[in-house]
Amino acid sequence: MAEADPPLYFDAHVFVCCNRRAEGHRRGSCAAAGSEKLRDYMKARAKELGLKRVRVNMAGCLDRCEFGPAVVIYPEGVWYRPQTEADVDEILSAHLVAGGRATRLMLTEKDVPPPKS
Amino acid sequence: MAEADPPLYFDAHVFVCCNRRAEGHRRGSCAAAGSEKLRDYMKARAKELGLKRVRVNMAGCLDRCEFGPAVVIYPEGVWYRPQTEADVDEILSAHLVAGGRATRLMLTEKDVPPPKS
Repeated sequence: MAEADPPLYFDAHVFVCCNRRAEGHRRGSCAAAGSEKLRDYMKARAKELGLKRVRVNMAGCLDRCEFGPAVVIYPEGVWYRPQTEADVDEILSAHLVAGGRATRLMLTEKDVPPPKS
Repeated sequence: MAEADPPLYFDAHVFVCCNRRAEGHRRGSCAAAGSEKLRDYMKARAKELGLKRVRVNMAGCLDRCEFGPAVVIYPEGVWYRPQTEADVDEILSAHLVAGGRATRLMLTEKDVPPPKS
């Protein structure tokens, strides 16, 4: 961050990939893996928890389709793969409320797409 | 960033608000202000410039509609309001290539939506 940058507008900005590809695409897609419902759930739960400087948004293809539903939280740049509402709760409580990590659900630097064929 | 976090997956992750509201909505919307074409242009130009660890994505409503087309670049959390392709070029060259700021186009902490009525 440069010295003259304005303060962060959101303390945590969450992006949930909601890209949908046709059934049978070799890479799959986050929407096909259920990301849209998880995004809706996350938005609603963040509101219920009163997380005021947190924003949850849908996003286009984040290009980690094989490891989706893909979620990234900035400014930390930490990626998660929630597959159930319980997973979303775990990310909310561990990361967004407590400021830690939901370690079990994190993507790592090894989670990269296979080379284009 | 916590010590055990994986390295950033993208050096710069750009989100362009592509939310569209009905014509005449009091807050307007970024898509109504032309954000979709600017997103397409930015993606194409970033590719032409060979910016490999930069990702440009569309996003849902970033809630700064009055100051749109709204663009935010993470991990810095710097917001911009490009209105033309020339503005997008300025952001690409000043911020994403040179690592500085396109100061003229930045949103500031004063650019907040009016209170809900």
